[in-house]
Amino acid sequence: MTGQTLSSRLATRWPLLQAPMAGAQDSAMALAVSGAGGLGALPCAMLAPDALRRELQTLAASGLPYNVNWFCHPPPAPDAAREAAWRAALKPYFDELGLDPEAVPGGPGRAPFSREAAELMAEFRPPVVSFHFGLPAPELLTRVKSWGAFVLSSATTVREALWLQEHGADAIIAQGLEAGGHRGHFLSDDLSEQMGTFTLLPQVVAAVRVPVIAAGGIASAAGVRAAQALGAAGVQVGTAYLCADEALTTPAHRAALHSEAARHTVITNLVTGRPARGMVNRVMRELGPISPAPSAFPLATAAMAYLRAAAEKQGRHDFTHWWSGQNASGCRAAPAADITRALAQGFA
Amino acid sequence: MTGQTLSSRLATRWPLLQAPMAGAQDSAMALAVSGAGGLGALPCAMLAPDALRRELQTLAASGLPYNVNWFCHPPPAPDAAREAAWRAALKPYFDELGLDPEAVPGGPGRAPFSREAAELMAEFRPPVVSFHFGLPAPELLTRVKSWGAFVLSSATTVREALWLQEHGADAIIAQGLEAGGHRGHFLSDDLSEQMGTFTLLPQVVAAVRVPVIAAGGIASAAGVRAAQALGAAGVQVGTAYLCADEALTTPAHRAALHSEAARHTVITNLVTGRPARGMVNRVMRELGPISPAPSAFPLATAAMAYLRAAAEKQGRHDFTHWWSGQNASGCRAAPAADITRALAQGFA
Repeated sequence: MTGQTLSSRLATRWPLLQAPMAGAQDSAMALAVSGAGGLGALPCAMLAPDALRRELQTLAASGLPYNVNWFCHPPPAPDAAREAAWRAALKPYFDELGLDPEAVPGGPGRAPFSREAAELMAEFRPPVVSFHFGLPAPELLTRVKSWGAFVLSSATTVREALWLQEHGADAIIAQGLEAGGHRGHFLSDDLSEQMGTFTLLPQVVAAVRVPVIAAGGIASAAGVRAAQALGAAGVQVGTAYLCADEALTTPAHRAALHSEAARHTVITNLVTGRPARGMVNRVMRELGPISPAPSAFPLATAAMAYLRAAAEKQGRHDFTHWWSGQNASGCRAAPAADITRALAQGFA
Repeated sequence: MTGQTLSSRLATRWPLLQAPMAGAQDSAMALAVSGAGGLGALPCAMLAPDALRRELQTLAASGLPYNVNWFCHPPPAPDAAREAAWRAALKPYFDELGLDPEAVPGGPGRAPFSREAAELMAEFRPPVVSFHFGLPAPELLTRVKSWGAFVLSSATTVREALWLQEHGADAIIAQGLEAGGHRGHFLSDDLSEQMGTFTLLPQVVAAVRVPVIAAGGIASAAGVRAAQALGAAGVQVGTAYLCADEALTTPAHRAALHSEAARHTVITNLVTGRPARGMVNRVMRELGPISPAPSAFPLATAAMAYLRAAAEKQGRHDFTHWWSGQNASGCRAAPAADITRALAQGFA
């Protein structure tokens, strides 16, 4: 499929997708991108049902195309022993901050796609739905497709791309390991299988029939051109939108993205229990970015979020995750529409 | 600098460099590539002085451009305790093969660039000299530049690229982590700093004044076009030459490169003590690809090579390193000249 065909299927001017970034953006970003000719996204993993309904109403009312994004991990069973081990690993930090590990509030962290979510979406019939960590169960996927949604999911290996194609993805996002935020892998936990965009993309393109959208490291029109040269029908860009006017990115995160610190990102499982790329912070440095200690995704989130909130009250970012891909050079304080149009010059 | 300017400085038709691959090729490959309009390379890390002289004579007599490549690591002091620990880690394998760890022959493994090497080269005045692991000491570098050699070295981070420019590199090879063989990093041992080609390349291009040559994952004319889109003045390709008629690659390695096994490469320090990318073998799987056990580079080589040789005699490849980048899809059984011309179509 050519980029033009993909655009026409997405009902956008360009096959340029704004990467859903839970916690960093909402429908305001999505509308700005879609209004400029790209495809904006609404990340739903951290939205409560009432907020989700409001956001979907806003998007549907716009008349613009949009993508609704879900995590579709199997929810883990609570595991008291493992959670105790996780809090024990963090105990020195609780002590340092004068916090009681027993006081960590429970909380979902990230919600997986569900039947309730599918039914809520069905009211609005979003034209594009994307998933991370594979695809939902067949009956849920069938429900999503029942209103004609174009379904995307991320592959981090050729094997995952073939699996997604076989299980009903209409297009595949080839997520190179340069990408910020959560890795989308779902068939293997072996991080050594993760590939750079430069190698993953052409091999996925060669392996599948569906269109392939490149993600990971694309931060400029030149990156868009390079991805197309490697066979991408479209691109998905996240980090370059983190400093957009519409982003919810904090001032400290924005400053970090424009600093030397952005040169060193790591894939870490300390924030949520699942590997994700962000800038190095103190706890990643001290425990190592990948550790056996965290509770299963997303349960690890609660303890780390509690530490983070307490430290941030003291003006410290030792426990703050600042997601970023390996190329923050595209971050600009500008309207998301401007960022979209600048990236889209790569399609000219 | 444009690709054309770089070509003119290299005296080649295209700014297309064949990556030096010690153990996998000699001057025959270099001459084939240079004869076809690229820049062939002679890897010297594993050549004894007499063999080196013969190879340089062959190359110099051709009248073609060529690149002579050296490792320039600081030679480690022998460390009996560390070597004993390394052999202890390998003891189950020695036992399994009925070998005596005490019988491991000493050996250099890989030789660093030296004064003697510089003087031998001075007789032949190679037009291009490339280094891995930084640059040699200033007086040695001055000697190399005294005959007008164009000097290259590899950077794996922006910081390394700036260091190389400051210390006299005439062009910089931006080595993305997709690349096969030894990682070129030399300012930090923290592998999490390594970047994919898609992110490393444009950030190095933006940071330095000298021309940047992209390496890591380039396996086709499309890859060459993508690298140029990201600002590369030239490209360096290794893996795609591993099955060339002129390569010294073993039949088993060639078969592996054409198999599913090539889909999973890891960066491992088990082969030489220094991280290098190759296909997963049994010992990498069992000890983990990155281990604290190996002796310092290149001293770790001896014990592993001893195991490898014994196992290979039994037809087993449990200890055999098959270097490969993350994209072996360009491997073809064909003359290196054909492979060169096919890649060069990316410059059209």
